[in-house]
Amino acid sequence: MRTIRNLHEMRAYSRQARRAGSTLGFVPTMGALHEGHLSLVRQSVARCNVTVASIFINPAQFGENEDLAVYPVDLENDRDLLKRAGADVLFLPTAADIYPPGFKTHVTVSDVTARLCGKSRPMFFRGVITVVLKLLNIVEPDTAFFGEKDRQQLEVVKTMVRDLNLDVAIASGPIVREADGLAMSSRNRYLSEADRVSALCLSRALSAASQRVRAGEVTAENLRREMLGIIQKEGRAEVDYISVCDPRSFEEKETIGDEALIALAVKIGGTRLIDNCIVGGKKK
Amino acid sequence: MRTIRNLHEMRAYSRQARRAGSTLGFVPTMGALHEGHLSLVRQSVARCNVTVASIFINPAQFGENEDLAVYPVDLENDRDLLKRAGADVLFLPTAADIYPPGFKTHVTVSDVTARLCGKSRPMFFRGVITVVLKLLNIVEPDTAFFGEKDRQQLEVVKTMVRDLNLDVAIASGPIVREADGLAMSSRNRYLSEADRVSALCLSRALSAASQRVRAGEVTAENLRREMLGIIQKEGRAEVDYISVCDPRSFEEKETIGDEALIALAVKIGGTRLIDNCIVGGKKK
Repeated sequence: MRTIRNLHEMRAYSRQARRAGSTLGFVPTMGALHEGHLSLVRQSVARCNVTVASIFINPAQFGENEDLAVYPVDLENDRDLLKRAGADVLFLPTAADIYPPGFKTHVTVSDVTARLCGKSRPMFFRGVITVVLKLLNIVEPDTAFFGEKDRQQLEVVKTMVRDLNLDVAIASGPIVREADGLAMSSRNRYLSEADRVSALCLSRALSAASQRVRAGEVTAENLRREMLGIIQKEGRAEVDYISVCDPRSFEEKETIGDEALIALAVKIGGTRLIDNCIVGGKKK
Repeated sequence: MRTIRNLHEMRAYSRQARRAGSTLGFVPTMGALHEGHLSLVRQSVARCNVTVASIFINPAQFGENEDLAVYPVDLENDRDLLKRAGADVLFLPTAADIYPPGFKTHVTVSDVTARLCGKSRPMFFRGVITVVLKLLNIVEPDTAFFGEKDRQQLEVVKTMVRDLNLDVAIASGPIVREADGLAMSSRNRYLSEADRVSALCLSRALSAASQRVRAGEVTAENLRREMLGIIQKEGRAEVDYISVCDPRSFEEKETIGDEALIALAVKIGGTRLIDNCIVGGKKK
């Protein structure tokens, strides 16, 4: 596996690969890799001739009081994991190259970003979308892969790609969970032993809600109330949002209908965790 | 000259041309073409193997009380002019294809867009930058050409291209003027005979200021005052801005220094006209 840090070298590599007839898959990450990331890398390796994974902790998507300064870095282990998953290139741009002095262009997607994570993290999606567009322009992949744990991010990226006429396919992979149900996340590394136990309330709330939908519940408010009850039983948990919404627009729903997204953001001992699932008739 | 309306057909044409080893020049316009546009087309024809010119009256860059509804359309004449200037393709996308239902992505460039034209037309640059990015993504040119009459637009496009890592060169062409000095503009068609005479105050003010700089004037405020005097002599003229500023940041200057941009926006009988020139030691 080759490591490329320079932006021009990255683009030259991609073009060379495409000229040679290869298809190119791209998995953008912030490192501290887990099975969720690696499942996307493997999907790319299975579908594309060449797979590029990037690690870039994007300062623009962190708020002032968020965890940029302590975000986990584990480059040697990440490199090893990517290599074993079959990635061909690790793209490691520097913040100085991505945001040179005088940088002042931003991409925004309206509406969706005012809801769920966009509401509690007002600069988050602007930062994500702008850096994703930059990385897509540098790497020029045929397909880029995003995890469904960040489902709102996935939808916002799809919207940006369509609206800006980018010629790239966006693929996604399902949430990968620990044996006990906790959705994998780089931020799980922050959890103390007690936090780790409490953190199960997210997946437990989602399971309970899904089960009620399968049993015939159609009223969104009943599901929200049930989930809130499960989470409030955990002393260490602080709800950011509990949403039963449209999976594309993220508007809150009154009834489940054909398809609904149930999404949660909960702080456990100071660590903000998210999780989600799709429920309803047209179950994905 | 071929006319292409479909976005996918346009991209397929460009790729085919590049696969055949051609370089591609692109001149985006809103039609109602004049010598300013055509000089850019000729520049592209001279420098690139294939030249694409687009005509798209972009609703997103017009404010609510601006002239979108009456913006001049002269397609048959435009087609003829482009053909004679040597363009290979006229790209004529529809508003429905450029802004499909649910469109919600916007690109902004901060700072520069708060000054000069950005100040009096708050949505203008967001609309310009977003559509330029879309057109660049569809046409995929090697070089795109912009006129220096819209100098702020030119700088904002360059900033966007650099910040978003687009692989396209931005070239520009000088302002083309009528014999009496009026900068060519599609909006000159709005001018009555009396307006047409009054409109000369813009180029007259710029000439006077340039001459004073050549004669040793270094104080920006003196230049602004002189230009204001010249324009206020015209009863039909209403000043939007008179600026002596940095040619990159558009921050107002106190002294001319190595290089300054003198830029004007003036309404003549209701028609908003702009003009500019570069002055100073390092004269372009």
